Amino acid sequence: MDDAGYMKRALALAKRALGRTSPNPMVGAVLVRGGRIIAEDYHRRAGEPHAEALVLERAGKAAMGATLYVSLEPCCHTEKRTPPCTKAIVGAGLKRVVVAMEDPNPKVAGRGIKKLKSAGIDVSVGVLEEEARTLNEAYVKYITTGKPFVVLKTAMTLDGKIATPAGQSKWITGEKARRLVHRVRGSVDAVLTAVGTVRADDPELTARIRGGKNPVRVVIDPMLRSPLDSRVFNCPPETVVVTKAMNTKIINLKKLDVKVILFKGKLELPWLMKKLGRMGITSVLIEGGSSLSAHALMGGVVDKVMYFIAPKIIGGRKSYPAVGGNTFKPLEKALMVKDMKVRRVGQDILIEGYL
Amino acid sequence: MDDAGYMKRALALAKRALGRTSPNPMVGAVLVRGGRIIAEDYHRRAGEPHAEALVLERAGKAAMGATLYVSLEPCCHTEKRTPPCTKAIVGAGLKRVVVAMEDPNPKVAGRGIKKLKSAGIDVSVGVLEEEARTLNEAYVKYITTGKPFVVLKTAMTLDGKIATPAGQSKWITGEKARRLVHRVRGSVDAVLTAVGTVRADDPELTARIRGGKNPVRVVIDPMLRSPLDSRVFNCPPETVVVTKAMNTKIINLKKLDVKVILFKGKLELPWLMKKLGRMGITSVLIEGGSSLSAHALMGGVVDKVMYFIAPKIIGGRKSYPAVGGNTFKPLEKALMVKDMKVRRVGQDILIEGYL
Repeated sequence: MDDAGYMKRALALAKRALGRTSPNPMVGAVLVRGGRIIAEDYHRRAGEPHAEALVLERAGKAAMGATLYVSLEPCCHTEKRTPPCTKAIVGAGLKRVVVAMEDPNPKVAGRGIKKLKSAGIDVSVGVLEEEARTLNEAYVKYITTGKPFVVLKTAMTLDGKIATPAGQSKWITGEKARRLVHRVRGSVDAVLTAVGTVRADDPELTARIRGGKNPVRVVIDPMLRSPLDSRVFNCPPETVVVTKAMNTKIINLKKLDVKVILFKGKLELPWLMKKLGRMGITSVLIEGGSSLSAHALMGGVVDKVMYFIAPKIIGGRKSYPAVGGNTFKPLEKALMVKDMKVRRVGQDILIEGYL
Repeated sequence: MDDAGYMKRALALAKRALGRTSPNPMVGAVLVRGGRIIAEDYHRRAGEPHAEALVLERAGKAAMGATLYVSLEPCCHTEKRTPPCTKAIVGAGLKRVVVAMEDPNPKVAGRGIKKLKSAGIDVSVGVLEEEARTLNEAYVKYITTGKPFVVLKTAMTLDGKIATPAGQSKWITGEKARRLVHRVRGSVDAVLTAVGTVRADDPELTARIRGGKNPVRVVIDPMLRSPLDSRVFNCPPETVVVTKAMNTKIINLKKLDVKVILFKGKLELPWLMKKLGRMGITSVLIEGGSSLSAHALMGGVVDKVMYFIAPKIIGGRKSYPAVGGNTFKPLEKALMVKDMKVRRVGQDILIEGYL
């Protein structure tokens, strides 16, 4: 196996902790000596040992002279619960370290690599860098901006509708697509929706898959029109309501352990994202209706879109469009979706891309 | 090469006449003896020799004992300009005939194959049948129903919009997609549009590609509100207006060599399709707006859809949706798109399927 092969393995290991390492990145490590993998592991969750530390401990003295493949630059700073990995690597007598990408964390940002090099270790950087960046795209954004990485998910018909004029939206897409959405929910820190969706669909917005970790639910409900018996308020995990209503309903919500973010005037989503970032939320999945999608896109807070397209046509000028809103972009100023990828998910098609 | 290999060649030859054989099917033929292709050809256009006749003539006496691969059952009827191919095949002393599909023409429908078999020729049917059916899907529908095969083409943004609220639609898709549309126009007998598109975009609706054959243009314009100087009325080829207006504008249109189809009351597209079928139009490409798409889909006249999806988002509740109309289908009665295929066309994505 060559460098790319071992790094692919490290990335696959890293991904096993999908959705569980926040606010840390997912990191996998593979230790190779004499063409054989002598140890491999990945970072489980914040506060637990880093992938590098795990493989070095497992290998023990056998690590001497080995090559370490790690999907992110080893850390060198000490302001955290775990000791710096660079020190452990130098101490273990490794010969070579292959790193997929620099750690964009300003506290690392190349300094880990420098430390290893100045200790005489041969360091290669950039093997499967693109894959590594994609895997940790939420971490990269959060650690450099303090704001969460935002994914907008939409399930629509082939003619771009998310609901009939009466609000019927169950189910546009098939089971496989819906299962994939649960997996995505399990990979983010929070799911964001709005009162319209709560009232129309009463969703749980949980990750109903084996081993799924539930995201915090954030509900935008300016006038607090969501019924108190809505599922989001009554099933775990945590729910946060974003509102400007100062009425008694807040007291009832607080009794249900719902947190409240208050705003005044018009809700600005960039403001809300900063707020969520400060709460330690590194990634947000938006699952709302035409209006919320429009606000998020026009407000410039969306990093990535996921459009599930069902092989169905419902038509109707008054059916709800994937993106609604009172404004629109002229074609020459349309939001451009980059790196568009398309694949089948069961009977449906998934188009993903970045803004 | 095996049977499928030779048939693939016959189909590729047939396709060279794309858009030129109507009302006849596209047919290719390959004559093989001793593992070598000794002649190959295809039907050029209605009135000219069939593919089988061409290869037999070219091979002459060498055809004796050879195997003929032909993408459609050879004809056996005499009510046309060219002699029946079965007679020529038997006369040439062929040993074996491989046919991709039976000719659905009620005048043939298996009788050609029977004739060959009863003359002692070994006949195999069904090699690459699916490919052959797709190639001649328009012919198959027309010859069995008398109605044209209808393709609905839409160019839309990722959020399912075909125009801004002001009607701006140029250009949603990229150059490659637009070039492909010109190729599709060159493959059909007629392009159908409506007054809204003529007024908003003033399109030519011609096949502006090298060697492109222009389709007849059919414009639905109930009140004759299209300007007389619209391109469709003033550049070749033929244009047909579908109207219920009995005013002097008709006289002016006739001066421009525009044909007129009159209707009373509400235009029913199934009625129009029958009418076009009787005019010898075997295939129609619909290129209209939200309304025409809705009428065609809800009216049940569409056989195939082609959705070009651009990597753009414009949003807006009042932007024009891919499929508009005053009615819609509830989800459980949504029009289902079958055999959905997806591929990239330049920067855009093309989703095709059948209704």
